[in-house]
Amino acid sequence: MIKTQTLKGFRDFLPQEAKKRQYVIDKLRRIFESFGFEPLETPTLEYEEVLAGKYGEEGEKLMYRFEDNGKRRVAMRYDQTVPLARVVAQYQDEFPTPFKRYQIQPVWRADKPQKGRYREFLQCDIDTVGATSLTVDSEIIAVIAQSLETLGFKDYRILINDRSVFGNLPIDAIISIDKLKKVGVEGVVKELEEKGFARKDLELIQNATMTESTMEIIDNAKLLGVNENNIFFEPTLARGLDYYTGMIVEVEIPSYASGSVAGGGRYDKLLGSFTGQQVPAVGVAFGFDRIIEAMTELNLFPEEVEQAKAKVLTTIFSDELKTKSIEVTAQLRRNHINAEVYLGEIKEKNPLEKQLKYALQKNIPYIIVIGPEEAEKNILNFKNMQTREQKQATLDEVINILK
Amino acid sequence: MIKTQTLKGFRDFLPQEAKKRQYVIDKLRRIFESFGFEPLETPTLEYEEVLAGKYGEEGEKLMYRFEDNGKRRVAMRYDQTVPLARVVAQYQDEFPTPFKRYQIQPVWRADKPQKGRYREFLQCDIDTVGATSLTVDSEIIAVIAQSLETLGFKDYRILINDRSVFGNLPIDAIISIDKLKKVGVEGVVKELEEKGFARKDLELIQNATMTESTMEIIDNAKLLGVNENNIFFEPTLARGLDYYTGMIVEVEIPSYASGSVAGGGRYDKLLGSFTGQQVPAVGVAFGFDRIIEAMTELNLFPEEVEQAKAKVLTTIFSDELKTKSIEVTAQLRRNHINAEVYLGEIKEKNPLEKQLKYALQKNIPYIIVIGPEEAEKNILNFKNMQTREQKQATLDEVINILK
Repeated sequence: MIKTQTLKGFRDFLPQEAKKRQYVIDKLRRIFESFGFEPLETPTLEYEEVLAGKYGEEGEKLMYRFEDNGKRRVAMRYDQTVPLARVVAQYQDEFPTPFKRYQIQPVWRADKPQKGRYREFLQCDIDTVGATSLTVDSEIIAVIAQSLETLGFKDYRILINDRSVFGNLPIDAIISIDKLKKVGVEGVVKELEEKGFARKDLELIQNATMTESTMEIIDNAKLLGVNENNIFFEPTLARGLDYYTGMIVEVEIPSYASGSVAGGGRYDKLLGSFTGQQVPAVGVAFGFDRIIEAMTELNLFPEEVEQAKAKVLTTIFSDELKTKSIEVTAQLRRNHINAEVYLGEIKEKNPLEKQLKYALQKNIPYIIVIGPEEAEKNILNFKNMQTREQKQATLDEVINILK
Repeated sequence: MIKTQTLKGFRDFLPQEAKKRQYVIDKLRRIFESFGFEPLETPTLEYEEVLAGKYGEEGEKLMYRFEDNGKRRVAMRYDQTVPLARVVAQYQDEFPTPFKRYQIQPVWRADKPQKGRYREFLQCDIDTVGATSLTVDSEIIAVIAQSLETLGFKDYRILINDRSVFGNLPIDAIISIDKLKKVGVEGVVKELEEKGFARKDLELIQNATMTESTMEIIDNAKLLGVNENNIFFEPTLARGLDYYTGMIVEVEIPSYASGSVAGGGRYDKLLGSFTGQQVPAVGVAFGFDRIIEAMTELNLFPEEVEQAKAKVLTTIFSDELKTKSIEVTAQLRRNHINAEVYLGEIKEKNPLEKQLKYALQKNIPYIIVIGPEEAEKNILNFKNMQTREQKQATLDEVINILK
């Protein structure tokens, strides 16, 4: 007998959930491509030495790694930035500069599973590699805004900061200040003081004014169609890392409390530290699971995503009339209408009962019944499963309604 | 410095290749969905005991498995049929019957890498679970035919057989007969004789006539739109396994010599052996890498797949005229035209040289130049990169051409 259990932190996506994921991926891909970003895929397994030492102490702990059958030390993709660095170093002459790529693949981290945190999750990144122009930063902002609007978010806040706002403040202090939203002013001050810093270090940052770079980024983002009401200068934003060298960006949905749905910035030194050559880069990662969760909470998925992929089920009235139902279904498909014909067993008594249940369970919006009367008149009985309205109609009429 | 090497049998898909893959996946998904198949995703890692012992001796050898950080024995997805069995057993009450699902995810096998054989490859399966009706088998044939035609294959052969053609012939003999295409009549006879069978065992199968089930399957496949000229009864077809209980199917492209591009059949006992309950099923797996290879050889990818995702690059003539170029690009996107604005450094001398090279390298079909003259007249210089034709046009005219 098969063990019917998945590993903690790993998930099955049954059709209802898989359809939502596919919907979001399709929308994001189309936006990324409209800006000229192109897809990249890298392997699930890399030589361990490609990934080892790249993600700090935490990464060393959480990475899935093992010895393969050929005694090679291998590791599972932990993020998409280190593989990008490898790809950039490995194929540099094959790429146009700047290189604009998107990557949507799962990554694995043996983190403690908890609400909203999984051991296998999809990452969804765009990065522009090889250009220092601030227009690159503006474009990333524009992709973020366009993506959120296309997914149906109306109220979103793009927080933006510049690494230089922190001046020479030590990373230790920055890490504390970055927690302002989480722990409040007094929490940050307490932490700062414990580390030997002062309340005024926080106040200085809080009162910092926008840098010229930030202003230029925002101006060009506006030209690219971003509404300035969605952009907020947030001088305390650091995103935990000393990774960023210029713009830092994070996105909040005010009506969704479980954290930011995207984050990134400019990291002009990171790729160089892997590849040996200075390679400027700007990117953003979308929090795929959080986006799905926020969209579900805010009811942003269109009805079609909740419905079956088939728009209509042609039921089978009896063995004798089966051929007729198959033919009608083929006709519907030929007219580019997603259609199913019922494939289960047909009971002689009350043949439609199970078929209606099937349509309901799968959330198929319409059904067609072809009984002896309909077959003789060469018409169909067409029923809307939601309104329960039904009528007799010709195949052409049904095609017109479903199109 | 980063190690710039991928593991043997694992691949990077750079944009050119990734776009082809995405094209095929999108086409197949749409066909599967038009028949009412819905997506399913299962985790990359399963408890080792879910997969162990399910794939015979070979599977035991080739499976990627290891101990995770929590000392659990885990294994990487080896196919999509055993995970399907687990899902069917685990969530049976949540599914409509029959359950029609497609699954397109990578699997891992530590096989010896060679031309066309990889250690990480995409599987692309459809299965209908829970129905004995032969219409299910016909529908699978119809999905195969529709998929191949949608991908552009004109000349394809759907070979079809019925397990019962082999009667009580031992599996040992069936395995030899199944090799007819590979080793020829004399090769099979030699192998049969070594195993203690006779030439007449082969002849009996070769001369077998179509079973009634096969006839019914083909009849209904025809009703579902399959051209009977693409269907061939092939009584020696067994697909290596004693796995199939009814229909056996395999697809050849005569002009592509590297093997079948799809295969499957009815397996009414397999899921039951995992789940303890008899669960009939029919499915087919598409050979994704071979399909890509065959399509490349036969030149079936439309030009748009070879081109950039952006239809047009707006070049930047000078720092002063940059704003104009950004605005034009935003306008194009607002009109649903995928467009890029050049983001690299602009040299004062010959500013367009690098930008033209970028467009060529990325295979962007059109470019726009806005120099001082164009800016003043509020027009664009619009150039077709292939024909090298260029003309001055208004933004509206360009939008109309690109739409």
